[in-house]
Amino acid sequence: MAATLLSALLVEILIPVAALIGMVFALIQWFLVSRVSVGGGQASINNGYDQSLLDDEEGYDDAEAVALCAEIQNAISEGAESFLITEYQYLGIFMAVFSVFIFLFLGSVGGFSTKWVSCKANPSELCAPPLANALFSTVAFILGALTSTLSGYLGMKIATYANARTTLEARKGVGEAFIVAFRAGSVMGFLLAANGLIVLFIAIVLFKLYYGNDWTGLYESIAGYGLGGSSVALFGRVGGGIYTKAADVGADLVGKVERNIPEDDPRNPAVIADNVGDNVGDIAGMGADLFGSFAESSCAALVVSSISSFGADRDFVAMSFPLLISSAGIVVCLITTIFATDLFVIKSVKEIEPSLKRQLVISTVLMTLAIAAVCYLALPSTFTINVVGHQPKVVKNWKLFFCVGSGLWAGLIIGYTTEYFTSNAYQPVRDVADSCRTGAATNVIFGLALGYKSVIIPVLAIAVAIFLSFSLAAMYGIAVAALGMLSTLATGLAIDAYGPISDNAGGIAEMAGMPHKVRERTDALDAAGNTTAAIGKGFAIGSAALVSLALFGAFVSRAGIAVVDVIQPKEFVGLIVGAMLPYWFSAMTMKSVGKAALAMVEEVRRQFNTIPGLMEAGLLAGALVSGVQIAISASNTGGAWDNAKKYIEAGASDHARSLGPKGSDAHKAAVIGDTVGDPLKDTSGPSLNILIKLMAVESLVFAPFFAAHGGIFFKWLNI
Amino acid sequence: MAATLLSALLVEILIPVAALIGMVFALIQWFLVSRVSVGGGQASINNGYDQSLLDDEEGYDDAEAVALCAEIQNAISEGAESFLITEYQYLGIFMAVFSVFIFLFLGSVGGFSTKWVSCKANPSELCAPPLANALFSTVAFILGALTSTLSGYLGMKIATYANARTTLEARKGVGEAFIVAFRAGSVMGFLLAANGLIVLFIAIVLFKLYYGNDWTGLYESIAGYGLGGSSVALFGRVGGGIYTKAADVGADLVGKVERNIPEDDPRNPAVIADNVGDNVGDIAGMGADLFGSFAESSCAALVVSSISSFGADRDFVAMSFPLLISSAGIVVCLITTIFATDLFVIKSVKEIEPSLKRQLVISTVLMTLAIAAVCYLALPSTFTINVVGHQPKVVKNWKLFFCVGSGLWAGLIIGYTTEYFTSNAYQPVRDVADSCRTGAATNVIFGLALGYKSVIIPVLAIAVAIFLSFSLAAMYGIAVAALGMLSTLATGLAIDAYGPISDNAGGIAEMAGMPHKVRERTDALDAAGNTTAAIGKGFAIGSAALVSLALFGAFVSRAGIAVVDVIQPKEFVGLIVGAMLPYWFSAMTMKSVGKAALAMVEEVRRQFNTIPGLMEAGLLAGALVSGVQIAISASNTGGAWDNAKKYIEAGASDHARSLGPKGSDAHKAAVIGDTVGDPLKDTSGPSLNILIKLMAVESLVFAPFFAAHGGIFFKWLNI
Repeated sequence: MAATLLSALLVEILIPVAALIGMVFALIQWFLVSRVSVGGGQASINNGYDQSLLDDEEGYDDAEAVALCAEIQNAISEGAESFLITEYQYLGIFMAVFSVFIFLFLGSVGGFSTKWVSCKANPSELCAPPLANALFSTVAFILGALTSTLSGYLGMKIATYANARTTLEARKGVGEAFIVAFRAGSVMGFLLAANGLIVLFIAIVLFKLYYGNDWTGLYESIAGYGLGGSSVALFGRVGGGIYTKAADVGADLVGKVERNIPEDDPRNPAVIADNVGDNVGDIAGMGADLFGSFAESSCAALVVSSISSFGADRDFVAMSFPLLISSAGIVVCLITTIFATDLFVIKSVKEIEPSLKRQLVISTVLMTLAIAAVCYLALPSTFTINVVGHQPKVVKNWKLFFCVGSGLWAGLIIGYTTEYFTSNAYQPVRDVADSCRTGAATNVIFGLALGYKSVIIPVLAIAVAIFLSFSLAAMYGIAVAALGMLSTLATGLAIDAYGPISDNAGGIAEMAGMPHKVRERTDALDAAGNTTAAIGKGFAIGSAALVSLALFGAFVSRAGIAVVDVIQPKEFVGLIVGAMLPYWFSAMTMKSVGKAALAMVEEVRRQFNTIPGLMEAGLLAGALVSGVQIAISASNTGGAWDNAKKYIEAGASDHARSLGPKGSDAHKAAVIGDTVGDPLKDTSGPSLNILIKLMAVESLVFAPFFAAHGGIFFKWLNI
Repeated sequence: MAATLLSALLVEILIPVAALIGMVFALIQWFLVSRVSVGGGQASINNGYDQSLLDDEEGYDDAEAVALCAEIQNAISEGAESFLITEYQYLGIFMAVFSVFIFLFLGSVGGFSTKWVSCKANPSELCAPPLANALFSTVAFILGALTSTLSGYLGMKIATYANARTTLEARKGVGEAFIVAFRAGSVMGFLLAANGLIVLFIAIVLFKLYYGNDWTGLYESIAGYGLGGSSVALFGRVGGGIYTKAADVGADLVGKVERNIPEDDPRNPAVIADNVGDNVGDIAGMGADLFGSFAESSCAALVVSSISSFGADRDFVAMSFPLLISSAGIVVCLITTIFATDLFVIKSVKEIEPSLKRQLVISTVLMTLAIAAVCYLALPSTFTINVVGHQPKVVKNWKLFFCVGSGLWAGLIIGYTTEYFTSNAYQPVRDVADSCRTGAATNVIFGLALGYKSVIIPVLAIAVAIFLSFSLAAMYGIAVAALGMLSTLATGLAIDAYGPISDNAGGIAEMAGMPHKVRERTDALDAAGNTTAAIGKGFAIGSAALVSLALFGAFVSRAGIAVVDVIQPKEFVGLIVGAMLPYWFSAMTMKSVGKAALAMVEEVRRQFNTIPGLMEAGLLAGALVSGVQIAISASNTGGAWDNAKKYIEAGASDHARSLGPKGSDAHKAAVIGDTVGDPLKDTSGPSLNILIKLMAVESLVFAPFFAAHGGIFFKWLNI
């Protein structure tokens, strides 16, 4: 057994300390946001703002506007809370039922026996009974679901708490407003990253008390944590997304095309709902999605390494490598955040987007150094990773640096590519805007083509990361590459949550009748937010691809599948049917509202539960490779249409002015594109991430069940 | 060596006789079409039409209208001819260059040696030198290209010959007009099927004179025939499709939305171009596409069986099984055609669509019987199919009946599903039409969702066919399943070519100012044609999937690849990058015009030629499974939008009338959808078939080159 430089005790201290630091930092940010007051007497509401900072607009009454802000914020907050509570009720029932299923399915594998059995890998050792695995998997599942729910809920709370505060600060200047929105985003980012890490860590420590030396059983049960996270994410994304878009599409169409009234006019009854939607869909939904990815990639890495030399050697430090990476990530993101909030002060509108992009670069560079340190300290210089049906792969610790790093940098490349294709600072969106001259049809065609084209570089980046990490450290490499992409999660989420908060702030400014200058500032914040939202989605999709593959790898490792040979009938059929599933799912999510969404969730579940034989590994591979492409193209097409419309509306260049103004034929065509893009980018695309992750994590968790009872379909066909 | 009931001599007689019958039948149909005169004196122009058959319309001058018909027909015919000749010039240069490449690439494998070498499979035998294989592959390639070009050209000729004749016959009645259009379609169908078969057969017989007992070399060289067919198809589809759509989108937009003039108004300068486009895109392009599929599936079957017991036993009868299936198909289609032209007379508009659908059913049922006969007569009762890395698969002859049959019936299922999703007789298109109430955006969303949903059943049908035929007879099973789907090619093409002919007839009737009643009849013919066009595309895509898989199988057999294990880095990366290619290709074809298309073709070619290492088998599988889905959804989405628009325009029900009339807001929204759908269904979707087939057939033909020089990329990475 090769030694690691860190001791087990130190690991048991470092991980909770990092999580604690993250939480404290989040609370500090929350406190700083709370210092902007929206209620109480006029004195406190001014927040140091001096009316002379703004040119007086005729008839503008600041006190009245501020009171209106508070009122609107309340309405949005109440709306979001009541939606989430309703969603959580359904979610609660679903989770309860699903928990019972997990327990019964996994418990049935050993006939609900409570006797310890001899381990498969090493018959001289004793392993926990399947009933215990069933119980602990269920507990891990519930923990994952609760942590995800809690993080999403808190994210929504801080977002609806900060939106009006951002509006009010915009009276002072764009820099002040930016900081409020960004701090609020960080609260979400750090709480989620810290919660996710600490709950996972505690679960491992507590489960270990029961499992003792049966580490395979321990970490397989822990995989339930990822399943819990992803199940919540499906609800958050699909439910929230559909709510958002039903409200948004309605508001857009009624408001903009038919009656020519501005998007955020309070006369439009759907606008509050629209703002609510941003909070439940883009904040809580995105949080749940990325939480799921984090939990799943950690679990995938843990499962693979538990059956490799880390597990065989009972090397707790090396086993904790994934958690240490995430711990380091929290500290790196903390430093990165300080750059945005304290070191670089934003003075003009033009500095917003570069500042957000700078966050990505700083966190990536710092994280690269941190990864090197963790690899050096927490890994033995040489170890082995089991590969089913092959010799175990001998890996040197520095190779893992390249695995984690390739994921991290692939994330940055995906982020920048997404920006290029969706920001109206570049040619692609301008071409789409230009195509509006000839009407909505060409706009739609150009937008779809842009989305298809935008798939190329992200897929190649993912492919390179996969190839490198796969070659260097087999399936474990993929899992830690996914973790690498997610290691700067706190910063990524902060940037992402910043978007809807700014969007809300703009909406509130308009509804409250704030002066023109304030609205200009919030609009600028919002425009930057649109691009970062697309970047966030790019990250989410990219990480989903890596995570799914990692889970797929963990599944084949656990199920003992040595080869997925696509020139065999079952596997090829799995591949082509799997590639069809994302289309099916898209078809359902694009049109669905309310009940249809739940019916769909149940349908997916039913498929999986009643036809376990179809859960062949080819199906996963097919759904994965096809889902990634649709998700990226849908997300970017939608983002591009949105920004093409904004480009025309802003009229910031001669070209843009030649297409405008609002209400022109070109603008109407742009609105149609934007409306088509909404379900693509906010419902269908992002929920595909979750579909593929969920399929993969389900097969991982239920692997023993499929092994015992699976393949019924093919058994029945007797081929 | 198990005996077959047919003798080799009989096979050598039966195949050319069947082809001859097909050609003679085509010429008879052409003769029958030619009896409708469009020129010369008034007497001959009447064609037995008595003006009293039509109620006189005020100011209608029949002689003038007929003269105008002849004039318009001339313009269309000249336009189509000049476009095709221009296309063929580019094509000629491309083919010449590509021929040189094929010769050099394949010749370089053995250092251009002219010495016979000992065979790989059986070192005691002598095999032809690689130089000979290079030469014969090149010859086969040129033959495939020429046959495809000729068939496409003849198809265009008869179509532009029959369009005005259909218009003129419509003065007599809908049945008369239908028969002209359908006969002209059959000319195309039978000529193509017969030409494809006879040239392939002659090439085999002549090549055999040189190759003697080296059957592996013989049939591997023959695979060049498929490559030639597919290369022409790429030009035909992409070039023709882009021409069609550039003209069509322009005509639609300018004509319908902006100036509110009818689609076929001769004042619109693009309408002639639009009609030309139908002939070069839908007739010549579709012909080349299906010819490619036929040639490729035959070649795939031949390559696989040449290295199996048929080849080892030098069993010429069994080797000719694929050609005998196609021969039987010609006879079956001949009988089927007589049902449409002579046995059931169409008396009313409502009978058109059922009559065309009946053709599909009749040909499928008759073909099922024919397949049984061919399996019984031409196959030994037991034989073996080689499976690389496994024991050869022992197959009984009746199992091949199920392989061919599963492909045949999967084709019928795909056809009917396509009809359900694209005909306005059913709910899906009506829902799309209904969504136009709320504007173009919802129309686009609903149309895209319909396309995604329409993927499910065709993919499952293909999956079942693959699973069954794969399980029963390995890769040979897949190849003959593809042949089964294409066995009723002549009828399929007749139905398909009927569509654009009727479309043209409608256009001519409108432009020539024919009476209302005539236009009603041609419109009805056209509406049925729209649905059958979608069915034809469904067939083309379904067969492309099977064909590509068959080629893929032939490639892995030839290249000696035992396993394509997607849980290995190279293969998985190939899979995900391959799944991206159809998006890339779609992005390019959706917007391209003219030069861009050629640039794109060259780019694809460059990719393949310079990075042979990327031609790993995972790439093929990825492109295949992802391409099928996009192609089906694009084609059906486009078809549905087209028919939703026609549904509103026709106003045949209360519901339809509530959405119309032409020029209403709902109709304008429907026009936008139709316009978006054009590049999807006519360029991007269909050319994907060809992309995946071309990739597969290229890898098959170049397999020895890749084996000798390939993998450069991965070799360079040294992993």
